[in-house]
Amino acid sequence: MSKPVILTGDRTTGPLHLGHYAGSLSTRLRLQDSHAQFLLLADMQALTDNAHDPAKVSRNVLEVALDYLAVGIDPARTTICLQSHLPALAELTMLYLNFVTVARLERNPTIKDEIEARGFGRNIPAGFLCYPAAQAADITAFRATVVPVGADQAPLIEQTNEIVRRINAAAGRAVLPEARAIIPKAGRLPGVDGKAKMSKSGGNAIRLSASPDEIRAAVRAMFTDPGHLRVEDPGRVDGNVVFTYLDAFDENAEGVAELKARYTRGGLGDGAIKRRLEDILQALIAPIREERARLAKDPGHVLGVIREGTERALTKTEATKREVFNALGLFRLDRRKPAGREEALTELARLGQEFDAT
Amino acid sequence: MSKPVILTGDRTTGPLHLGHYAGSLSTRLRLQDSHAQFLLLADMQALTDNAHDPAKVSRNVLEVALDYLAVGIDPARTTICLQSHLPALAELTMLYLNFVTVARLERNPTIKDEIEARGFGRNIPAGFLCYPAAQAADITAFRATVVPVGADQAPLIEQTNEIVRRINAAAGRAVLPEARAIIPKAGRLPGVDGKAKMSKSGGNAIRLSASPDEIRAAVRAMFTDPGHLRVEDPGRVDGNVVFTYLDAFDENAEGVAELKARYTRGGLGDGAIKRRLEDILQALIAPIREERARLAKDPGHVLGVIREGTERALTKTEATKREVFNALGLFRLDRRKPAGREEALTELARLGQEFDAT
Repeated sequence: MSKPVILTGDRTTGPLHLGHYAGSLSTRLRLQDSHAQFLLLADMQALTDNAHDPAKVSRNVLEVALDYLAVGIDPARTTICLQSHLPALAELTMLYLNFVTVARLERNPTIKDEIEARGFGRNIPAGFLCYPAAQAADITAFRATVVPVGADQAPLIEQTNEIVRRINAAAGRAVLPEARAIIPKAGRLPGVDGKAKMSKSGGNAIRLSASPDEIRAAVRAMFTDPGHLRVEDPGRVDGNVVFTYLDAFDENAEGVAELKARYTRGGLGDGAIKRRLEDILQALIAPIREERARLAKDPGHVLGVIREGTERALTKTEATKREVFNALGLFRLDRRKPAGREEALTELARLGQEFDAT
Repeated sequence: MSKPVILTGDRTTGPLHLGHYAGSLSTRLRLQDSHAQFLLLADMQALTDNAHDPAKVSRNVLEVALDYLAVGIDPARTTICLQSHLPALAELTMLYLNFVTVARLERNPTIKDEIEARGFGRNIPAGFLCYPAAQAADITAFRATVVPVGADQAPLIEQTNEIVRRINAAAGRAVLPEARAIIPKAGRLPGVDGKAKMSKSGGNAIRLSASPDEIRAAVRAMFTDPGHLRVEDPGRVDGNVVFTYLDAFDENAEGVAELKARYTRGGLGDGAIKRRLEDILQALIAPIREERARLAKDPGHVLGVIREGTERALTKTEATKREVFNALGLFRLDRRKPAGREEALTELARLGQEFDAT
């Protein structure tokens, strides 16, 4: 009866771009009806490598939420919530950190790669090393069983499931479900310059609120085949960003296949394929940009959406925390309130006897 | 006007013993009037190396609270509170972990020693490595400026102050106070067997609820001077546990000095000094044991004390968390509620302009 739960989200470090659209937003749109979906505005995780600039993390909360709504995320079906306002996530993280060793965190391939990419060396912020446990807390707090991630993030789901199994073993029952990664077939969208990753900081992104001029300029400057100088020359499709983007965004797959064939043979200019791509991107982004501009005029509405979603998420995550804490047998101030005097006395007597045994 | 705030506490891994009394409880009793004192039942910290046995951590919450009350901690003056029920401590820890590097945590002398003592090697639970940040969260959440610790724990206060300075630098103002360690002159009470540390797990402790027979047996078995075989032989005072205990618990310092002189000269038997110590310990522990037994008959009262203290602590720690989050400029769902449309629009406009600049 109940729909499978999906948790995804974004670090609030900048507005979203086409890479996010191809890699995750389009999937999220597709799954809105079939799944109970939670979108986490991950401001606390963003701090793990942006502690020097919390203002950036903070001001992008609204940006990312606007992007969600603008692409068609429907808050009536998908819960948009703010990580820093969900204490259970921090509490579960602290608990989980006791169920994973430092050595295991350091071996995590995602962490290893990212430590290298960020040039942290030995000066990794401890919060960054610990973020797989924080992510496990995020996933499990929502009882998510499906987590869409990039291929490079798959080890984090492995790590989550390891923690889940340890918690369940300690609790003596399956208090938490394991999660399954869904990895999009498409792979990661490259930057307009041909670099593997589109990113705002790399300056090679087309953001979802890009103006028509910005889209045009980005497509014109797009990396194709440097050896393809004249229209009649044979051109390379592999590594040609324009074709990668056409694969991702042109719904006419046959048409794209035909273009690729012509381009490879020779006789098709970069200008022609770029015009086609530009038309597609202008058509894709125009309604997003317009909706975003409309929504930006009513920030109270956007804030209301985040607040309402965060309240729903609060209920859900607090319930999970309580269940996990109780399953492990942590001390409960609440349950003991109505406990009878007899029961408490029996327990205290037992405590006295146990002292010498332990 | 307002009293300086003290934070102390105990990991809930077992009932307290004479070592706790000499090392911290007696100080806490003395400071009840002059300071705003918070006693933390540190069940979450206890889990950092007891994740395999959460039940032990849980059942000792009541034990430790009983010990507090039995020695004379007065809940009207000292707040007794339960760590696992104070989410702000976990939230601040997660924040602080971004302001300290893994290398710095590993260099912490206390952590280094304890990793060795516990035989963790490379398999340190991540929670254990992170506990200096958790302790910084505990201390700062209560705005404690005075922290009584053993000499071996002093580096943890250094670590706390480092984090405080970083948070204050990031916030651009002194949102958190630094803390000062008070290290008891007495030093740590050895075990009855002469080992440096009295501990329940070491089997060399006299707990505060020990029966008269247990006290007698412990004193009789107490380590003295193995070379002091006959009464008339000169004996060694140094490393002689009976004298160490007399120094700690006999209020007649002159009398003890005289005994030491006689013992050193020869002519004073172990039996005599042990009788004197036993009398003192029986007199010290008897009222504690009786009060503890009386309190144990009314566990509802003890639970009420913890609940009430935890509620007070909740107010205090949540306020600090909000203040720190706000000072760093983290996103606020609350403040933005009443914000005017104009203000929000200005902010959104600014956001748009900032995109290209960042």
